[in-house]
Amino acid sequence: MAPALEFWFEFGSPYSYPSVMRIEDDAARHGDIQVLWRPFLLGPIFKSLGWSTSPFLVEKERGAYMWKDMARQCRKYAIPWAQPTTFPRIALLPMRVALLGAERPWMGEYCKQIMMQNFAFDRDIDDETVVGEVLDALGLPAGDIMAEARCEPTKQRLRQQTEVARSRGVFGAPTFFAGDEMFWGNDRLDDALAFLSERGTR
Amino acid sequence: MAPALEFWFEFGSPYSYPSVMRIEDDAARHGDIQVLWRPFLLGPIFKSLGWSTSPFLVEKERGAYMWKDMARQCRKYAIPWAQPTTFPRIALLPMRVALLGAERPWMGEYCKQIMMQNFAFDRDIDDETVVGEVLDALGLPAGDIMAEARCEPTKQRLRQQTEVARSRGVFGAPTFFAGDEMFWGNDRLDDALAFLSERGTR
Repeated sequence: MAPALEFWFEFGSPYSYPSVMRIEDDAARHGDIQVLWRPFLLGPIFKSLGWSTSPFLVEKERGAYMWKDMARQCRKYAIPWAQPTTFPRIALLPMRVALLGAERPWMGEYCKQIMMQNFAFDRDIDDETVVGEVLDALGLPAGDIMAEARCEPTKQRLRQQTEVARSRGVFGAPTFFAGDEMFWGNDRLDDALAFLSERGTR
Repeated sequence: MAPALEFWFEFGSPYSYPSVMRIEDDAARHGDIQVLWRPFLLGPIFKSLGWSTSPFLVEKERGAYMWKDMARQCRKYAIPWAQPTTFPRIALLPMRVALLGAERPWMGEYCKQIMMQNFAFDRDIDDETVVGEVLDALGLPAGDIMAEARCEPTKQRLRQQTEVARSRGVFGAPTFFAGDEMFWGNDRLDDALAFLSERGTR
């Protein structure tokens, strides 16, 4: 069985953006590691930790630095970048669609396109026009998928998945799990993949 | 003139430890970049940001993760590691000595040895026996240096240097400046060095 890396992410999370853009290629380079997509909502996690909003808004200095760092990181990874005019962006609709797509072949490309709408094209990713355009461009039945995304069972599953994240000690995004081993932040993607491939060869 | 990287650090700061251990070799590899050692106190910085102590104690989840991450990072860099039984460790005496040593040839080795006392040997680095042993082992006049470290002008200079850090937007350690460009965290040491060497060749 191919080793698998759990990838917990949020479309509103800046550092989830480079990870979404890099993870499939990086996982393939590390000996065909499977990516397990785990969309979850950061808002309830932050609330449970006592923050009313993103820590990048709570801690102004760290927030100001983050935007400069994101611009440099995207340049380093050759990823398009424009600082969003709204932060953090609500991403309920695209996150619910991501939940439906998590085991579909279109998941990786869908996530990249939604992320670029937020962090390269500065668009409102919770708008059904934007999500619809992305699904259309992938040749998918946008209307059907968004209708299922809006149903109560999908909403409920996303809440449950977020609760799983919280119970496993997730406190930010992106977070990676290689088995029980937790790695936090885009800066640890390569370490998490290396951990898995080393364990696989033992 | 060789390009220079400002290295702002604290002996009590976990992520300053791998940076202290790596920076001289890494700077040499990036085309002979000069390291400008800038010891400063994290405590007053954290207080000015509204934290009563280290954010790793204020945010329990992030703190618990940090210790696991530090162990993995040290393994990755092949640096000795043992989780300190006291955190954060007060480091006033060794920081004041570092201020005196900042432009001396023994600075790099002194900083490595103090850091290892904290993060590999779990010793009280604010103890004059520990600092004295480190200075002795480097063949330095430990008594004279520690006497100067305890004089009011040295204490005053360390307070001033900390105030400079705060005024330049430093909110944690390690922090690197390449000119006015700020890089935060051990994970950005290589980016900061790459930034300098690219700028140097333009």
